[in-house]
Amino acid sequence: MIAFSVLLFPGFETLDAVGPVDIIGHLPQFYEIHFYSPGGGLVKSAHGVEVLTESLAAYQPGGVLLVPGGLATRQLVVDPLFLQQLKKTGQKSMYLLGVCTGSVLLAAAGFLNNKKATSNKNAFAWAQQIAPQVKWQKKARWVKEKQIYTSSGVTAGMDMTLGFLADLHGMAQAEAIARAIEYIWHADKDDDPFALEEN
Amino acid sequence: MIAFSVLLFPGFETLDAVGPVDIIGHLPQFYEIHFYSPGGGLVKSAHGVEVLTESLAAYQPGGVLLVPGGLATRQLVVDPLFLQQLKKTGQKSMYLLGVCTGSVLLAAAGFLNNKKATSNKNAFAWAQQIAPQVKWQKKARWVKEKQIYTSSGVTAGMDMTLGFLADLHGMAQAEAIARAIEYIWHADKDDDPFALEEN
Repeated sequence: MIAFSVLLFPGFETLDAVGPVDIIGHLPQFYEIHFYSPGGGLVKSAHGVEVLTESLAAYQPGGVLLVPGGLATRQLVVDPLFLQQLKKTGQKSMYLLGVCTGSVLLAAAGFLNNKKATSNKNAFAWAQQIAPQVKWQKKARWVKEKQIYTSSGVTAGMDMTLGFLADLHGMAQAEAIARAIEYIWHADKDDDPFALEEN
Repeated sequence: MIAFSVLLFPGFETLDAVGPVDIIGHLPQFYEIHFYSPGGGLVKSAHGVEVLTESLAAYQPGGVLLVPGGLATRQLVVDPLFLQQLKKTGQKSMYLLGVCTGSVLLAAAGFLNNKKATSNKNAFAWAQQIAPQVKWQKKARWVKEKQIYTSSGVTAGMDMTLGFLADLHGMAQAEAIARAIEYIWHADKDDDPFALEEN
């Protein structure tokens, strides 16, 4: 079993975390889903969803770590303790997935230096300012850079997660899940309807 | 403030509930989001997300009630106590939203007699068998029947929720939220890419 772990923090964007989880949850034969937060316990999303988490102290290494975004990231990128915990956790993981401004957290923790990445186009100027060392892609539904995936805003995380599964398990598997959840999958990572301009 | 209430039960399909919540959560000036379950406390989704709920005894009447689906509905449609609780709760609500097989729960509780509705196309034969008194629509991303909205599978619930907001607050508001979450909104409720056949 591969651990699919989601790192939550107060004020996370609900769908950034839970959209991908629903998709991954369709492969229980491969993935075991965990929710973590630095201290464990209930963590409330930006929209009032209170989700139970385990403490990062119990983190299962070697799996997939997904980091959601949300307005709360504005504080977290200047929180050295959180960034250190994220860095340690990410280093124990095989794949990193950053959704929306979760990719800016990955950048601030040092995972995206001189690498291509993307983020929500509504927060793009901020991402560039916080992490100028990243090759931010202005036109990308999501970006794959070796073991690190980053997506555009919120629902792009679902498209990316299906793309991640397609890379690991084949297109047929990803398409079958999209059909099961009747999702009109935007499967071309380079076609970005919300692009600011060409790269 | 309008109460936007989601009725959870063990094994609910995660995204049926949480996709719409993220969307509604973008209008905190109008909607206050609540999660309920018959007994209150933590309720675990089909994909292991444990969400804190209030007891239905504390239900705030006069708002919107959303009912998600999931494989767990197979037991709930033959659970008279649950259906009675759903009926009482629905009768106190101004709008009813059924996502995926959540619409079959609304049907089993008696809200859809001789009314048009839809559900996940993968579960359609079952829906027809459980509730033959409903005018099930084989081709519909979602259906609006006065104060009752029902959607096709899982992610169709997000399209429906944006449609619901468009009906109440105008297209511009719904489109602004879709842009904020970079969602490629399938805004035509009658165009169903997963339709079994014409109605």
